[in-house]
Amino acid sequence: MEEWTVEVHHSKTKKDKPKTDQLEFGRIFTDHMFIMDYSEPVGWHDPRIVPYQPLTIDPSAMTFHYGQSVFEGLKAYHTPDGDIQLFRPEKNLQRLNRSNDRLCIPPVDEAFVLEAIKQLVFLDREWIPTSEGTSLYIRPFIISTEPFIGVAPSHQYKLIVILSPVGAYYKEGINPVKIAVENQYVRAVKGGTGEAKTGGNYAASLKAQELCAQKGFTQVLWLDGVEKKYIEEVGSMNVFFKINGEVITPELNGSILEGVTRNSVIQLLKHWDIPVIEKKVSLDELHEAYMSGTLEEAFGTGTAAVISPIGQLSWEEHDLFINEGNTGKTAKALYDTLTGIQYGREQDPFDWVEIVNEKSAVK
Amino acid sequence: MEEWTVEVHHSKTKKDKPKTDQLEFGRIFTDHMFIMDYSEPVGWHDPRIVPYQPLTIDPSAMTFHYGQSVFEGLKAYHTPDGDIQLFRPEKNLQRLNRSNDRLCIPPVDEAFVLEAIKQLVFLDREWIPTSEGTSLYIRPFIISTEPFIGVAPSHQYKLIVILSPVGAYYKEGINPVKIAVENQYVRAVKGGTGEAKTGGNYAASLKAQELCAQKGFTQVLWLDGVEKKYIEEVGSMNVFFKINGEVITPELNGSILEGVTRNSVIQLLKHWDIPVIEKKVSLDELHEAYMSGTLEEAFGTGTAAVISPIGQLSWEEHDLFINEGNTGKTAKALYDTLTGIQYGREQDPFDWVEIVNEKSAVK
Ligand SMILES: Cc1ncc(COP(=O)(O)O)c(C=O)c1O
Ligand SMILES: Cc1ncc(COP(=O)(O)O)c(C=O)c1O
Repeated sequence: MEEWTVEVHHSKTKKDKPKTDQLEFGRIFTDHMFIMDYSEPVGWHDPRIVPYQPLTIDPSAMTFHYGQSVFEGLKAYHTPDGDIQLFRPEKNLQRLNRSNDRLCIPPVDEAFVLEAIKQLVFLDREWIPTSEGTSLYIRPFIISTEPFIGVAPSHQYKLIVILSPVGAYYKEGINPVKIAVENQYVRAVKGGTGEAKTGGNYAASLKAQELCAQKGFTQVLWLDGVEKKYIEEVGSMNVFFKINGEVITPELNGSILEGVTRNSVIQLLKHWDIPVIEKKVSLDELHEAYMSGTLEEAFGTGTAAVISPIGQLSWEEHDLFINEGNTGKTAKALYDTLTGIQYGREQDPFDWVEIVNEKSAVK
Repeated sequence: MEEWTVEVHHSKTKKDKPKTDQLEFGRIFTDHMFIMDYSEPVGWHDPRIVPYQPLTIDPSAMTFHYGQSVFEGLKAYHTPDGDIQLFRPEKNLQRLNRSNDRLCIPPVDEAFVLEAIKQLVFLDREWIPTSEGTSLYIRPFIISTEPFIGVAPSHQYKLIVILSPVGAYYKEGINPVKIAVENQYVRAVKGGTGEAKTGGNYAASLKAQELCAQKGFTQVLWLDGVEKKYIEEVGSMNVFFKINGEVITPELNGSILEGVTRNSVIQLLKHWDIPVIEKKVSLDELHEAYMSGTLEEAFGTGTAAVISPIGQLSWEEHDLFINEGNTGKTAKALYDTLTGIQYGREQDPFDWVEIVNEKSAVK
């Protein structure tokens, strides 16, 4: 596929761009989108950039019935110098292919799709907002389109990339959120699809999220589906705790999504010589640390919110007020450094950033 | 919604119908489909029958990303007298609303949707095939259509019903199939979405199905996700075992789909004074029964295949050849009676059958 080029059909009109101070998350989309088809025996073919437009899909397309789909989420950032940057995009493409494998979707050529994404972002670069905390959210996704009502892997797919200028994901921003521990509903279980980024995991999470919101919480903390004892994730973020100077996070176990932000946080902490440990983390352990006064911080990590401090964690008769409900020092330092690197305000000692420029457009 | 009527837009052309002896499952669709929209604050509205046609949906529609969708499956049968019958359709509509509840999708008016389905089936009645074992498969499904990239319940939906003339679901028909016990992958877990008919459960099942097919098995037997000890379902069917004259089936536990065929089988067995017990069924128990010579039969139940006998059940070093690989007496009697009632060849002592006729069309 390396010699392939993306055919570009320019949009005849340009849509109005949103006011940068009124940006919501994921409601507005840019002028163009990328599409590529899969069918047998050709494989992936016909990569093209076209005006953003509705899809025309048969009602029997498998994606509507059997949930065979995967997606990714990453962002493009404007630097103070006017450059455009992506943050570790190869990680997202690798994860896309891991998700594909779990869902029996044929793998994509990671390098080629990354080039296509850069080309799309460069074409719609005027849509990247510039004010503090804003960015262009990039959503690649694959759907199964074979018109067939039967439980089996599809023989036809579409990979699509759409772009959305976004503000903060949580209205709380970097301010601490209230989290409820979920002990009835389960997001994912070992042997299921938890480590893949596929729709079913998110569909499964809606009910718990709805119930916790009714009680005034922002998100739920997910426990493992087997013993309901070990901590997995928070909302759709990975989760970290600082206990007695040490940072711990649930180890990857087959039901936790391997976040790009999680990986970056671990690397940053090591770089700073802060001990960081991936292990099973039980709710009991957390509670004990809280009672003995050593639970110093808790925060979620993810592309959308970057770092989201947890100010309160509640279950049954327990209400843990972590760091007195304030953003902790470690969370703050991680947020500042990560966003510093992402927005090109700080040095990038890890070579995490990838520039998008004219060269991305000529292929 | 009771006073509502379905607006009908007739198809200008009629498609060719498939040869009845070449019918596959779920590849061909009839001339019309039913659609109804949901938006707020109106609720479900604009019910209509239109020519079968592709859907036009925004690429940001939630259904492509977060798997918030549900579906149902039932059949219309031709009787020897030329009547058209549905089998316990109200059960499917009830289950649709239970699935909706789990997936945070607003409920539908069950009676109204059933009327709409009957009207659609009557309009496309020429598509109901007449030869042995064939029928018209009815697929209602709901997708979330709000153009929004964010994990939350959608505020817009479409309910769609499409129809497909079908032959046998498994090429084996009523002949016994070879089943592999799955001990790595998990279909569903208590607290998850297993008891809802939603795409994610089926997406999760594809990998195990693919691997078992490579080894020459037709389907997998799913174990519980917690202890990997108790039997849940077989492929996408419920499962029954006859041990020492008694029929047992896994009890509903939150991760098993409550099949309409399962419920009908239980009622029929009771009617025949054959003991039937819903309880936890462990793989060990099955193995012991086999070794002591009391495992008499095993079979799956579902709308698509009705009754599917299990001739071989394998895991690790174990290969159980059940009833010497033949279709058992109970399975055969259930198949004959159920299909007899469904196709109107036998009496219907339970009032399970619902007739579709001219009256279904005038509303
Ligand atoms: C379930 C889940 N966990 C964790 C994450 C965090 O992953 P990342 O840091 O790659 O955004 C996400 C978001 O992508 C997610 O959906
Ligand atoms: C997972 C699963 N289990 C069981 C069944 C059997 O249910 P029913 O008898 O209602 O067709 C189905 C099929 O509908 C199914 O998808």
